[in-house]
Amino acid sequence: MARYKLTLAYDGTGFSGYQRQANCRTVQGIVENALQRIGWSGRSTLSAGRTDAGVHASGQVIGVDLDWYHSADELQRAINTNLPPDVVVRSVIPVPDDFHPRYSAQARCYRYRLFYDDTRNPLRERYAWRVWPAASLSTLQELASYLIGIHDFMAFGTPPKKGGITIREIFQANWQYDLGELVFEIVGNAFLYHMVRRLVSVQVEIGQGKRLPENLTHLLKGEVDSPIERLAPAHGLTLVKVIYPPVSGGSSDEIE
Amino acid sequence: MARYKLTLAYDGTGFSGYQRQANCRTVQGIVENALQRIGWSGRSTLSAGRTDAGVHASGQVIGVDLDWYHSADELQRAINTNLPPDVVVRSVIPVPDDFHPRYSAQARCYRYRLFYDDTRNPLRERYAWRVWPAASLSTLQELASYLIGIHDFMAFGTPPKKGGITIREIFQANWQYDLGELVFEIVGNAFLYHMVRRLVSVQVEIGQGKRLPENLTHLLKGEVDSPIERLAPAHGLTLVKVIYPPVSGGSSDEIE
Repeated sequence: MARYKLTLAYDGTGFSGYQRQANCRTVQGIVENALQRIGWSGRSTLSAGRTDAGVHASGQVIGVDLDWYHSADELQRAINTNLPPDVVVRSVIPVPDDFHPRYSAQARCYRYRLFYDDTRNPLRERYAWRVWPAASLSTLQELASYLIGIHDFMAFGTPPKKGGITIREIFQANWQYDLGELVFEIVGNAFLYHMVRRLVSVQVEIGQGKRLPENLTHLLKGEVDSPIERLAPAHGLTLVKVIYPPVSGGSSDEIE
Repeated sequence: MARYKLTLAYDGTGFSGYQRQANCRTVQGIVENALQRIGWSGRSTLSAGRTDAGVHASGQVIGVDLDWYHSADELQRAINTNLPPDVVVRSVIPVPDDFHPRYSAQARCYRYRLFYDDTRNPLRERYAWRVWPAASLSTLQELASYLIGIHDFMAFGTPPKKGGITIREIFQANWQYDLGELVFEIVGNAFLYHMVRRLVSVQVEIGQGKRLPENLTHLLKGEVDSPIERLAPAHGLTLVKVIYPPVSGGSSDEIE
């Protein structure tokens, strides 16, 4: 029995989120079904973290314990043969037994895409949020710079366990213009539930003049009773990469 | 009764092509149903040209004769309210009665997107063809330059009517690299059925070393009995824009 690190990419549109649930099509459920068809009989795979319904991933990471007598490349092909078109194993590498996709991770990188338009755009809206009126790129870039560092993100999400710590460290956060879209990229040690989607909605609302910039600095002090209500929609969000120390398998392979 | 020029965008994935067919979900069928719900009672709308099943459009153009007593903007909103998420009217403008989306058009612009990868990529494959092994960009750029000008494209497609003329003029053709994808853009006065998809497949096969470059120059002489077999898949292709003389409504609005 050896442990393998699998990097997954999926289009979240057709899934009720990452985590397995009875009677729902989930990424974990579909991947575990594929693993069972090639002889896996474990109770559960490990993951770097769940993603919500509709959220995409280009570099989700899971851990699987498996008896496998061929190469890692053959394992990848065998699993992919059993997966539907909207999810794929991008890479397979053997890792030490103490590798854990969540606890071994040093950082996560998420990307949120949006575009400005007053009319629907069927060719963009699967992977990006349509926003109107526009918010200026320079405003968004300034707001993103406020996020970097250690903050109490209580206003932006809930911890995995009730009453858990809400302090997180953000290493990078920036917006850039890319072929008609604004792309927010954020790297942090860990994220609260719904945190990226709340950070995006607050920045956009400030950029549109619906909130003052000071509101963001206030919220980042964590002096709130509960998280703000508004979430940017799931379909603009992608889990891009999970980063590990070199000994436990390096970073997940980023794809675009 | 006045004539309106409608510019449509659609994600072709869920449609059995543009042209109306009994018992199939087609763009024309869905749009005409929406028009009927706002009082249109014509027999058929006019279009710049049909697109195949799976082909996308950001600037398809249709013509509709309609009694409408409000503004063109209100007409656009009224139709869009009755359309599903994968198709939208991007703009509506009143045009002279002799405007015809196909016969008034001076040129069409198509774009074909592909990327190189030996593993599936669920976040790219809806709108781009996955190709492996890679073909060099400089080779593709050179091949595209051969296409420009007036040629007999008999090897690349069939005319709308059997025995019809297969000579077409290509004004622009080029490949460029764009965020991990290779994008082929081609502008011509008109296109044969399946022509862009055959032009893409031949260029890629030459780039991969499966055909010689001289094969393309030979095929462009039109000295063939029937079109080549291989088509690049539909999902990489987008009808970007239809171009009209300024008097009959200008070009369709290009969106990305």
